[in-house]
Amino acid sequence: MYEVEVKVAADLDAVAGRLDELGAERTGDVRQVDVYYDAPHRDFAETDEALRVRRETRDGETETRITYKGPLVERESKTREEVETGVADGEKADAIFEQLGFEPAATVRKDRRFYRYDGYTVTLDAVEDVGEFVEVETETNEGGVEAAREGAFEVLRELGLDPEDQTRTSYLGLLLDDAGE
Amino acid sequence: MYEVEVKVAADLDAVAGRLDELGAERTGDVRQVDVYYDAPHRDFAETDEALRVRRETRDGETETRITYKGPLVERESKTREEVETGVADGEKADAIFEQLGFEPAATVRKDRRFYRYDGYTVTLDAVEDVGEFVEVETETNEGGVEAAREGAFEVLRELGLDPEDQTRTSYLGLLLDDAGE
Repeated sequence: MYEVEVKVAADLDAVAGRLDELGAERTGDVRQVDVYYDAPHRDFAETDEALRVRRETRDGETETRITYKGPLVERESKTREEVETGVADGEKADAIFEQLGFEPAATVRKDRRFYRYDGYTVTLDAVEDVGEFVEVETETNEGGVEAAREGAFEVLRELGLDPEDQTRTSYLGLLLDDAGE
Repeated sequence: MYEVEVKVAADLDAVAGRLDELGAERTGDVRQVDVYYDAPHRDFAETDEALRVRRETRDGETETRITYKGPLVERESKTREEVETGVADGEKADAIFEQLGFEPAATVRKDRRFYRYDGYTVTLDAVEDVGEFVEVETETNEGGVEAAREGAFEVLRELGLDPEDQTRTSYLGLLLDDAGE
């Protein structure tokens, strides 16, 4: 399964208004705090991988998930393979990775508003120390990547946004850029 | 928190009979299938660490946990630090470690019968391709290790076993020894 995701910087209040006009379904709100780890044996910046421990708070409940992100398989839409599982104890998951020599490298904090529109998940992200962004995403198999990407561009246009403004840099990358790295 | 654990080879039927005579409480049965991983950047045999993904089946329900085991801190009783958390999806946990370059090295399969006696957990283990063993264990803080170890020896003696027969080699080590490694 591949995640196709297109992201542009946007004014969230304007986009929220447009989603309401279009009759998009608002599906939830979460707070995410993501810790990205450096590996002891690979330079993830070089291999284009990531290891993340995410704490997600929804309706006052916090869940923790660990995620491995593989290198890009399709540059245009930032498509990459992801492997993820929930863990019962986030502190222990952190401690296991740290004992194995992985080190927390950066933390991305954001508030996300989710909508469902035309088969896509549209997410309004307010990212601390980075800015406001809209993501349009869906999942597909390898053969469906191109069509899914075109559909995501169409959704962006309906929201008054320009697919040409696409940011391919991750929030982690944008955060580190801002930090002068 | 430190785990103090003493293990001896034993005839399980004889020990089970003795536990019944002593009025020990039988607290459960599990089947455990443990996959041990090799690290890409450290030789765990050299550093005396372990990374394990354990599937435990109890009353037909299977749960998966990941565990990091640190080096021995107290040789006599095999005391080491452990960090463990449950995971929602064992296959995904395996896949994350494999993507990070960890490789499954060996699998230990055993049936365990648990008893509670005199503040200790007494476990009767039938380990595939290895043999039958009794473990006596408890948890303590660093200062309590010596007293906990003496108590475990006393429990062994009450079970008709000799603490001098203690095996300090893990089931993993015993399995690999049998395999001629």
